[in-house]
Amino acid sequence: MAKPLTIVFALYPDVTHLDFTGPHQVLCNLPGAVAIGASALGGSIEAQGLVFGDLARLADIEFCDVLCVPGGFGCTDAMADPVYMDQIKRLAAGARYVTSVCTGSLILGAAGLLKGRRAACHWAWRDMLSLFGAIPDPARVVRDGNILTGGGVTAGIDFGLTLAAEIAGPEFAQAIQLNLEYAPAPPFEAGRPETAPAAILELVMARRGSQMDERRLAIERVARSVGL
Amino acid sequence: MAKPLTIVFALYPDVTHLDFTGPHQVLCNLPGAVAIGASALGGSIEAQGLVFGDLARLADIEFCDVLCVPGGFGCTDAMADPVYMDQIKRLAAGARYVTSVCTGSLILGAAGLLKGRRAACHWAWRDMLSLFGAIPDPARVVRDGNILTGGGVTAGIDFGLTLAAEIAGPEFAQAIQLNLEYAPAPPFEAGRPETAPAAILELVMARRGSQMDERRLAIERVARSVGL
Repeated sequence: MAKPLTIVFALYPDVTHLDFTGPHQVLCNLPGAVAIGASALGGSIEAQGLVFGDLARLADIEFCDVLCVPGGFGCTDAMADPVYMDQIKRLAAGARYVTSVCTGSLILGAAGLLKGRRAACHWAWRDMLSLFGAIPDPARVVRDGNILTGGGVTAGIDFGLTLAAEIAGPEFAQAIQLNLEYAPAPPFEAGRPETAPAAILELVMARRGSQMDERRLAIERVARSVGL
Repeated sequence: MAKPLTIVFALYPDVTHLDFTGPHQVLCNLPGAVAIGASALGGSIEAQGLVFGDLARLADIEFCDVLCVPGGFGCTDAMADPVYMDQIKRLAAGARYVTSVCTGSLILGAAGLLKGRRAACHWAWRDMLSLFGAIPDPARVVRDGNILTGGGVTAGIDFGLTLAAEIAGPEFAQAIQLNLEYAPAPPFEAGRPETAPAAILELVMARRGSQMDERRLAIERVARSVGL
């Protein structure tokens, strides 16, 4: 019987669900894994129309080996919620690995955990990491000490396999990869602003438009309030 | 206001959650998309420790444009459940696209929907498609008429983008890809039996061992009972 390995996914309303379902599907296969979905209040949260129920209350979790903070449009509300942020700080302090996917790294930043640390983030939000004293890194998975961060959304799967290899060894991680048939074959090459056709990038930026300005202002407010 | 596009994910207990959260995250962005999680009884189902709540009851859904059936170890129980299977047949009959990810294609097969059709499936289960008169295809995403099927688990993302391009055009699909930062960079090349180190494949097959034999017997029973 493997020693328990407690992995906490710290969720919040309007999280991007694939940010955590990707790594959850990878990491729940680790020896002894107890993968827990949790939120500030417990109960359930909604994400893009899917409802995640039976969540633990973060305050009720004594300790975790891995803390994973996903991203999503709800991240700005989450980082302004002291109940949520206090638990992120507490659990991170005792965790062996402090991790995030996508804009989850901005939450780690707002918790003061990324000062002087390199971190990944969704490409459209990445530069905001510097508001929290972090060093934005364009890599898909970034390791700095015990902090592992993944880039936008689907990077969570690559992050998950990287962490799986770190914890259980590369053979184990490869067995998980084979079970999940993770041999990606995207039908287009538009996954990064550097490779997407210019017209696609313009389309995405135009749609995000004023929404991104508002998000940036919200994140700047948080950064000022936490004195980073 | 875009015309509604109803996408139903037909879930069941012990589904592999990434089979449907991957394509859900892609397809919920389509113009007018109403992406519904549903099950035979409605309510909630558990999958690898995550609880999906507020599910619709399949019988209460009048019609869908896209029916998507995910895979998972629960697929053998699902295909033996007449309540679930009757709804799959009913919704498939009216759908513009009948789709699956991973072993979800075996469920489509058990519903009699794949006779003489090419289909994808998780590599370890793929040959069982022929029990239902389907033609196993090793491609990651397979199209045969209005039937689109994806391979194992993570193929659901590639399937989702392929279907998104089909429905809303390649530009729209690429914009979704960029938003999801889908530029995968697996840390290993072990995602297919053809590329995985031999020792990894042996490890995975040894672990699946007798479990796979039981599953095959269960699926053979279903194939006999439906006269395929």
